Amino acid sequence: MQTDEAQLRQLVSTWMNATKSGDIDTVVGLMTEDVVFLRPGKSPMNKKEFAEIAKAQSSESSPEIKGTSDIKEIQILGEWAFMWSKLSVIVTPADENTSMKREGHTLTIFRKENGTWLLARDANMLAPVQLAN
Amino acid sequence: MQTDEAQLRQLVSTWMNATKSGDIDTVVGLMTEDVVFLRPGKSPMNKKEFAEIAKAQSSESSPEIKGTSDIKEIQILGEWAFMWSKLSVIVTPADENTSMKREGHTLTIFRKENGTWLLARDANMLAPVQLAN
Repeated sequence: MQTDEAQLRQLVSTWMNATKSGDIDTVVGLMTEDVVFLRPGKSPMNKKEFAEIAKAQSSESSPEIKGTSDIKEIQILGEWAFMWSKLSVIVTPADENTSMKREGHTLTIFRKENGTWLLARDANMLAPVQLAN
Repeated sequence: MQTDEAQLRQLVSTWMNATKSGDIDTVVGLMTEDVVFLRPGKSPMNKKEFAEIAKAQSSESSPEIKGTSDIKEIQILGEWAFMWSKLSVIVTPADENTSMKREGHTLTIFRKENGTWLLARDANMLAPVQLAN
């Protein structure tokens, strides 16, 4: 039996790997029904919008998305938890040899439903970073 | 005796008013010692750094800072709570007649210490908005 913190680290790892392989169904299965994604300069995004955008992106040109998450803090608050981490994502379009790097922090809230941790609220502060070509 | 939610709404209101009047000591008194501020494209900021930057800004040119916070959700999790809101801030420098508007969402985590709610973690996704002059 994993500790809550180990389960949350596993969720993040599963999320990153599924994103990398374009397995959107797995990513969407890691969220609560009422999930909210907050981002700079954009409207809040719900689960349906997330799935639509992610599927459109993965079917179009199949970019390679490689991410690493450096978890800085996890706090378990009963059936809820929060985490903040430093995230780096490198996106390489299939038809191009230029990559784009985005880096920044995330503040994420999780909820335990029927014994399983799910992502419930997420603030994503990724910003573009200059990359040598 | 106010409910926890009413106390958190009061904290936000006190924060906004103290910011408007340049009362940095009051704002800093509303945070935990281990507070972390996360922002796009910047390093995490601690309490000491917040106080230094806020004091430098308020003493320099005394810009007028008018903000409104539209609270979208508050969840109380025992001695912790989280909130997300839509924030609008208009900054008008004392020596200029052009204002700058910044708008976006915040995801904030609070902790109750000795019966008093304090801001503990904050993700601030404010971005510049074009303003008619």
